[in-house]
Amino acid sequence: MTISEDQITEWFARQSKLSPDDFPIGIGDDMAQIQLAEGVSVLVTTDMLLEDVHFNLENATLEQVGYKAMAVSLSDCAAMATVPVAAVVSVALPRSFGEKELKQLHAGITSAGDKFACPLIGGDITAWPNQEPLALSVAMLSRPAGNEPITRSGAKPGDAICVTGSLGGAISSKHLEFQPRVKEAIQIAQIVDVNAMIDISDGLSTDLNRICNASHVGAIIEADRIPISDQAGKSEDPLASVLNDGEDFELLFTLSQDQCKKLLQNWTGPVPITQIGTITNTKKMQIKMPDGRKIILPAKGYNHLNPR
Amino acid sequence: MTISEDQITEWFARQSKLSPDDFPIGIGDDMAQIQLAEGVSVLVTTDMLLEDVHFNLENATLEQVGYKAMAVSLSDCAAMATVPVAAVVSVALPRSFGEKELKQLHAGITSAGDKFACPLIGGDITAWPNQEPLALSVAMLSRPAGNEPITRSGAKPGDAICVTGSLGGAISSKHLEFQPRVKEAIQIAQIVDVNAMIDISDGLSTDLNRICNASHVGAIIEADRIPISDQAGKSEDPLASVLNDGEDFELLFTLSQDQCKKLLQNWTGPVPITQIGTITNTKKMQIKMPDGRKIILPAKGYNHLNPR
Repeated sequence: MTISEDQITEWFARQSKLSPDDFPIGIGDDMAQIQLAEGVSVLVTTDMLLEDVHFNLENATLEQVGYKAMAVSLSDCAAMATVPVAAVVSVALPRSFGEKELKQLHAGITSAGDKFACPLIGGDITAWPNQEPLALSVAMLSRPAGNEPITRSGAKPGDAICVTGSLGGAISSKHLEFQPRVKEAIQIAQIVDVNAMIDISDGLSTDLNRICNASHVGAIIEADRIPISDQAGKSEDPLASVLNDGEDFELLFTLSQDQCKKLLQNWTGPVPITQIGTITNTKKMQIKMPDGRKIILPAKGYNHLNPR
Repeated sequence: MTISEDQITEWFARQSKLSPDDFPIGIGDDMAQIQLAEGVSVLVTTDMLLEDVHFNLENATLEQVGYKAMAVSLSDCAAMATVPVAAVVSVALPRSFGEKELKQLHAGITSAGDKFACPLIGGDITAWPNQEPLALSVAMLSRPAGNEPITRSGAKPGDAICVTGSLGGAISSKHLEFQPRVKEAIQIAQIVDVNAMIDISDGLSTDLNRICNASHVGAIIEADRIPISDQAGKSEDPLASVLNDGEDFELLFTLSQDQCKKLLQNWTGPVPITQIGTITNTKKMQIKMPDGRKIILPAKGYNHLNPR
């Protein structure tokens, strides 16, 4: 496809004429927000997971697949610093699947949901005519956690750029068993004012680019500040792995330098928070290499419509 | 599969331990209900549509597919007599699909949503590695329309059983262009007290069975009272078509005989409402044939896990 997922999403967003009173957050963020009554809103996200794209049944159990499907949406709740409320799951099963396989998927779905008091409250079970591959779609609702939901579009020049945890190499195993940063996001938002946030689903370079585009800003990150996961450290090109692998499901967020200092002083972990760069007014993304050179950082993370 | 979709749904429902204060309606109805605050609730449904199961791209346009995906969920909103609020859509695309195909799907999605002021507010676009078939999953939110949402479980012995429109033969074309009975459901609930309601997605026999099971009642319907669609009338066995074809997406509901009289007197159409039978305390479903014989009515509609 000649168009990227983000470009088509922007086109969809332009077609939608949502009243900001009814829909304070529309198409193009991690979740959309619906204002139901004065002071009462709900947010919604959906994620489709496909066999041989997001998981492979040769090295993942169905319980892991169910877990991942829910965890991806829980990570969207985290990206907005919102509280997961409930989920519905629709599945398209290969013809050979039966009760046993459905119960394995269900066990994974509920094990992820139970961690965050986010029950499965409905769904739809369909089956392919033959052995077409497994697909799962989760839709999850959340509610604001006291603060307003944090969007991608509030980053300001001068903001510190921070990440939770460590990045890269998730494909080896972490992508099946990651911990959505729901609690960490809400804790961060309780301690400081966060200007923009996203979860790293498609790679640091691509998801930072999404914040920059939505906020009409640029960014410079410092290569030797980025926390590298053990898996990425073992790879041929650890920096490329950290920038572009995707499926880290860590939080990427920006806040003023003062607020960043306050956060780092008050943060008691156990998940580490690291400042990796600064938002700029240049509208371009750069990376400062360990030798001091500043080079353009292309968004080379995962593109669902043009995979590598 | 040896287990039916309804049996596995019942198993999922038994596993869920939902607080009725937070979730007044849980797994097993057309939508689940979430109580967000005093007097403020939202309902949610999800439906997965698969190529070669729910549509065939040899005789359906992508715009029709997008329309149907939304209309199926709009019909769930109707089944509870609730007001559609917004939808999110996730898609799994064959690798050859591009911008053009996505825009065609989008046109169908929004043409259905626009009819009921139900905007698309988010989604997820994924692509299969090769030419695997198209899948779409819609999740839709609705809100109560003044009355409490109408469940499947309130039917009472002696209730009249009614349907909107006419039944059977939808597969020939109606399944791609049906009108979800959203406005009719809300109008009905404004005129009378409805005890139980469902939309006929898998065939009259199967969906009536769902009301009977959920309400712990039986039913007797009269064959020559059932409104037969023109398409079903042309089929080899019009009665079988009417009972079991599925995808009518008409409303099937029960209410006291007095309320039924009131409804039929006050109903101004244009969609007809017909009384087709009576709820019984027998826990079995029967059909009175045109010759006067009463025979057991088996639930022979579409079973997604064991298709005909």
